[in-house]
Amino acid sequence: MENPDFSDFTIAVVGLGLIGGSYAMALKRLNPHEICGIDMDEETVEKALRAGVIDRGCGNPEGILKDADLVVIALYPEEAVKFIKSNIGSFKKDVVITDTCGIKTGVIEEVHSFLPGDMDFIGGHPMAGKETKGLQSADSDLFRDANYIITPVERNREKNVELICKVVKAIGCKNVVSITPEEHDRIISFTSQLPHVIAVSLINSGNAGGDIALFTGGSFKDVTRVAAINSILWSQLFTLNSDNLIDEIERFEENIKTIKKAIRTEDKNALEDIFNCAALNKRKMMVLNERA
Amino acid sequence: MENPDFSDFTIAVVGLGLIGGSYAMALKRLNPHEICGIDMDEETVEKALRAGVIDRGCGNPEGILKDADLVVIALYPEEAVKFIKSNIGSFKKDVVITDTCGIKTGVIEEVHSFLPGDMDFIGGHPMAGKETKGLQSADSDLFRDANYIITPVERNREKNVELICKVVKAIGCKNVVSITPEEHDRIISFTSQLPHVIAVSLINSGNAGGDIALFTGGSFKDVTRVAAINSILWSQLFTLNSDNLIDEIERFEENIKTIKKAIRTEDKNALEDIFNCAALNKRKMMVLNERA
Repeated sequence: MENPDFSDFTIAVVGLGLIGGSYAMALKRLNPHEICGIDMDEETVEKALRAGVIDRGCGNPEGILKDADLVVIALYPEEAVKFIKSNIGSFKKDVVITDTCGIKTGVIEEVHSFLPGDMDFIGGHPMAGKETKGLQSADSDLFRDANYIITPVERNREKNVELICKVVKAIGCKNVVSITPEEHDRIISFTSQLPHVIAVSLINSGNAGGDIALFTGGSFKDVTRVAAINSILWSQLFTLNSDNLIDEIERFEENIKTIKKAIRTEDKNALEDIFNCAALNKRKMMVLNERA
Repeated sequence: MENPDFSDFTIAVVGLGLIGGSYAMALKRLNPHEICGIDMDEETVEKALRAGVIDRGCGNPEGILKDADLVVIALYPEEAVKFIKSNIGSFKKDVVITDTCGIKTGVIEEVHSFLPGDMDFIGGHPMAGKETKGLQSADSDLFRDANYIITPVERNREKNVELICKVVKAIGCKNVVSITPEEHDRIISFTSQLPHVIAVSLINSGNAGGDIALFTGGSFKDVTRVAAINSILWSQLFTLNSDNLIDEIERFEENIKTIKKAIRTEDKNALEDIFNCAALNKRKMMVLNERA
């Protein structure tokens, strides 16, 4: 695919952490008119400027927002909403704003409650990340071959949704999936939030202390890989999606109860049925993942 | 470390699957007098012979067991006990037998209930594996830098315990850890069996069907990596260690309940405390793992 032309575009990235920093690096390769960075940490802005990640940067959003045609907000959910609200007078009147938050319904509803009619806010969620955070972890290839979910709603303009799709493809994403914010939050509570609940609960469940390190094989390390969780971000993500997440946790608890009963009664047939079902589900998922 | 001399030893490996096949390959490099393989599947024996994994092989154990100084049983727990019992008259009278089962107490007690006094059975558990099975997955480097647990008991002879340690180090293991069978089964129920319970329960918990493949990031794939479980092996491992495993599942369920309550009440402070604790535990574990 030929790279689309962004030479008329001034793009601002708000929050130069792992996601925002990676976004800025990937956007830079598209040769936009200007790529600007906003971060409340002046030192981060300095670093991004020195590394050539951004052309212009500032802790104070006003001077940048008045020029930006496209604004990518890479902040935690509550901070993203606050940022747009506090700076609402500084945006261009036909600006296109997108975010990168891991939950969508609450963020989109809140933003739309105060966003002027000419401005367009389109929710986005890159399915990419790392266990580390900050600009020092940013990587221009973070989005390479990743899936990217967008959650346009009725008030979004078609041409702006197309713009976001074009940008997301241009920074390297393989699939752009468009679903409703509600559907997004329901699915993500199972595919991302529940695994994090599990990782945290497993690592906090250990009471054997130091002597278990020699006994942990791959399965323990895998399940707990994401356990060193960013506590502020994830407490927002979980509470903003609490109904969906509670449903998924309870479905998972039912499955744990079923297997526990089979273990307690030493019912090998029941266990084999559970395992065969799991193996089948796992293989189905692997085939679908390869196609995705 | 200089390689010890095994040129006087005839070693038999029973069960030429992933573990037994890898064992035979790794033992071959030590140049024992003879390395023999026993497998009830004649085709597997043929393949192992053709590949040079073993010097002599047979489906019928008698001819091999009468010559073997050391026998490594790489069968499922119940089959391991059955094999030793049914062939008890064929072993050399001062044979050293070890196994590779993932649970120890039940296996060792059962074997000792019928093992003649001159024969020595020393329990072992290599902390190495793969998601695939069979001789075609075997790998001479499977044990490289792995941890290996042995569970000697009072009736084991010191020199035979030392022999097993020497063999295990020689096939590439980094740490040989010696603990009681009971301690082994308690720890392993947390570090290995519980993660498998979790992986199976999570993959069986999905009701979203095919459309979730595009929404699974790393955390879901990690937690469910081992979900395509070997149903016959793991139903034995779980039921043979049911008391320990039930305890660990229930401790995990308590942690899930705690986090669920914090999500339901949208108590961000409680969530942050849980996450900070998890991050601390995770980092502690990583440090210990590096040292291990």
